[in-house]
Amino acid sequence: MSGKAVEFAKDNGARFVEELKALLRIPSISTTPERAGDVRKAAEFVAEGLRAAGMENVRLIETTTATHQGHPLVYADWLHAPGKPTVLCYGHYDVQPPDPLDEWKSPPFEPEERDGNIYARGAVDDKGQMWMHVKALESLLKAEGKLPVNIKVIVEGEEEVGGEGIAAFVREHGDVLKADAALVSDTEMFAPELPTLCVGLRGMIYTELEVRGAATDLHSGMYGGAAPNPFVALAQIIAKLKDETGHIAIPGFYDGIEAPTADELKAWKSLPFDEEHYRKTEVGSTELTGEPDFSVLERTWSRPTMDVHGMPGGFTGAGAKTVIPAKALAKISFRLVPGMAPEATFEKYRKFVEGIVPKGTQVTVRMIHSGEPIVVSTDNDYIRAAKEAMAEVFGKETVFVRGGGSIPIVGDFVRELGIPTVMMGFGLPDDNLHAPNEKFHLANFHRGIESIVRFFGLVGGA
Amino acid sequence: MSGKAVEFAKDNGARFVEELKALLRIPSISTTPERAGDVRKAAEFVAEGLRAAGMENVRLIETTTATHQGHPLVYADWLHAPGKPTVLCYGHYDVQPPDPLDEWKSPPFEPEERDGNIYARGAVDDKGQMWMHVKALESLLKAEGKLPVNIKVIVEGEEEVGGEGIAAFVREHGDVLKADAALVSDTEMFAPELPTLCVGLRGMIYTELEVRGAATDLHSGMYGGAAPNPFVALAQIIAKLKDETGHIAIPGFYDGIEAPTADELKAWKSLPFDEEHYRKTEVGSTELTGEPDFSVLERTWSRPTMDVHGMPGGFTGAGAKTVIPAKALAKISFRLVPGMAPEATFEKYRKFVEGIVPKGTQVTVRMIHSGEPIVVSTDNDYIRAAKEAMAEVFGKETVFVRGGGSIPIVGDFVRELGIPTVMMGFGLPDDNLHAPNEKFHLANFHRGIESIVRFFGLVGGA
Repeated sequence: MSGKAVEFAKDNGARFVEELKALLRIPSISTTPERAGDVRKAAEFVAEGLRAAGMENVRLIETTTATHQGHPLVYADWLHAPGKPTVLCYGHYDVQPPDPLDEWKSPPFEPEERDGNIYARGAVDDKGQMWMHVKALESLLKAEGKLPVNIKVIVEGEEEVGGEGIAAFVREHGDVLKADAALVSDTEMFAPELPTLCVGLRGMIYTELEVRGAATDLHSGMYGGAAPNPFVALAQIIAKLKDETGHIAIPGFYDGIEAPTADELKAWKSLPFDEEHYRKTEVGSTELTGEPDFSVLERTWSRPTMDVHGMPGGFTGAGAKTVIPAKALAKISFRLVPGMAPEATFEKYRKFVEGIVPKGTQVTVRMIHSGEPIVVSTDNDYIRAAKEAMAEVFGKETVFVRGGGSIPIVGDFVRELGIPTVMMGFGLPDDNLHAPNEKFHLANFHRGIESIVRFFGLVGGA
Repeated sequence: MSGKAVEFAKDNGARFVEELKALLRIPSISTTPERAGDVRKAAEFVAEGLRAAGMENVRLIETTTATHQGHPLVYADWLHAPGKPTVLCYGHYDVQPPDPLDEWKSPPFEPEERDGNIYARGAVDDKGQMWMHVKALESLLKAEGKLPVNIKVIVEGEEEVGGEGIAAFVREHGDVLKADAALVSDTEMFAPELPTLCVGLRGMIYTELEVRGAATDLHSGMYGGAAPNPFVALAQIIAKLKDETGHIAIPGFYDGIEAPTADELKAWKSLPFDEEHYRKTEVGSTELTGEPDFSVLERTWSRPTMDVHGMPGGFTGAGAKTVIPAKALAKISFRLVPGMAPEATFEKYRKFVEGIVPKGTQVTVRMIHSGEPIVVSTDNDYIRAAKEAMAEVFGKETVFVRGGGSIPIVGDFVRELGIPTVMMGFGLPDDNLHAPNEKFHLANFHRGIESIVRFFGLVGGA
């Protein structure tokens, strides 16, 4: 039954792109409180798109509570395929902050097409990929008048800030989202033209480490040598958290980690991965870093790690200010792999840091947000259908990979709804996620819509 | 002859304070390029004050060259005391940036009197103390019609950014400033009511350490574990520069250091210094830090040290951004003591850092500015006159101390003009230099003017 819908998607592809551009123009940066209005605008845009597609029961679900200033969820469904499975489509309409702004070739919220790509913050993560879902549903509903499966759609606006709102909703109103499988398009293909399903994700804990020394900012001339320096203290702590081989020194940190199976490791070895090409074109550093006993794919997919994202405090302007700041902060995150629990890992980290507090300082460790690591079994019908759908569209065997990033909701779907998630993503490795010049390859936007249309067809047994 | 001038200063004290407030209202932050206009306004205010005092040849001297965007010097003189010595009065009218703004109890550029103090950025460092010179000269010239010595005045606007303009001027036009001794009021008293002369200063090098890892900002989920993290690299470098006892690990760093004399150390021991009181009321940290084999006074006066002032780069906003930044920076300074040369120390530091560059990163070390350490012999007539003048005003024996900060010009006066500098300062230890709520004790402003009037008298043999 997918033929007519695929045809419809092709005929309407140019319009779909123009609609996506309109969505990309909304700076829905969920971490910036001043952008709350824009975040809501994006939610309304998505709701309107679902309505226009022919979906039913479209509504915004508020997530703000007494303790949480949230952004709305967008819900929709179409449940007129009795006896067929129900697929829950998930995406997010919020985006990362665009800084550093001066490195963008075109403004982050003025989408621009160049060389077959669309450049904008959120182009691939995740507005562009979420919009594929909406357009696949529209193509089926407009061309066929119905869907081959039952569909529920949930789109959130807090993915980039930890997804607290949707997590609470899944926990408390799991019945609303009851389904047989989830479909998430928020990952990437392993290489251009290589259809890829992601079957594992790292979890994470995102923390702030605050060090206080003197009661007030001090002049480094007068007090340097006797007053504690919070940045030096942070440097000492960070240098002790991870050694120079990339090994994390927190006691018990690696306990209980589940290594990938021998089969999985063998499959990874056969992937078209050129470490030198990756270093040069993706990372661009003089060398790669990390645990020497593990391959790059293991280091980024199945090994935990630690990163420092920023160290606010003190004097950061141009020129010189000879201040010993009273406090300084480090934004530190850990990526977790199967076998590691966020809370327990945070406790080990906190305990370790509290045991190495530099002289004269006081240290506070705060959890900002967290997400659990997950692995999806490849032995199920939904993964098989997705594998076949992508192979049909791309004309190539679909490969299984893992992702190093976190999509916390996938863990919630497993834990709260007991359903597997199909992570069918169409991003490319050089799409600059979370970085300046984020893009989405337009051919993949269109092939993504077609793959999703075919996936629904295969799941529905059409 | 100083009686009438002292009387005049007392009668006009309230006006002097109001004039100072007007000067404090000008946000002459020399490190902020957008404030260049305000910096010039402050220079013109000082020039006008010198003219009104009765000084001659008052003029602004531009310091901008092909390679240096500078702020003007203010020059004035009065040279009608034949046979008498010439004293060069130095001060600066530029100030430190006021951030963090939210910690000020009253706005930094709206001077406010509270409990006998005047609160504003620059109150004591150095507008208030520089204004004492102007008002001492005015008091003598208005009350006596003449000065007991020949006077030259040079006031700069780049002290807080390294003083490149005045250094070049002293080097190239030393004849203009030719004098027998310099008077600088940019230091503090050791304790309230304790007249103090500063006879030594630490030098410094202020540097930027830049680490580059990946070619562009990367998503820490996708690349964490394989891509170099510039903040982690900076932490590793900083942790290696200084160990946890405060010892700097750069090879040869301490070579050639001239320790204080046994007499000087003995005198420091007799100063009213309570380490626990200092820790609690001045520093406010849980413990003091630094080299355990040296006293706090040695650690801050006669031992070199290292401080980190800020670490710009990456994500510093509220919330979470999972970025591995392409680059990060650390603003790092070293305080130097007699026997250490800025350039040679910088070279040792640069070489050491270049030998410990973390894997996958590229490191650049930049010198932002520097100043030489100095010691002044107490065995000269100017120091003796200053000692006596202050003792008269405060009714107490004057003590000799050193300062941990840097006043690079004092080194230039020694090296280029071959003259000793009298560092007669009236700040107090809790004046919050370079910090929020900077203040100047108003009683000291007035006693400072009287001390300077008497100092000129004693030098002139009146």
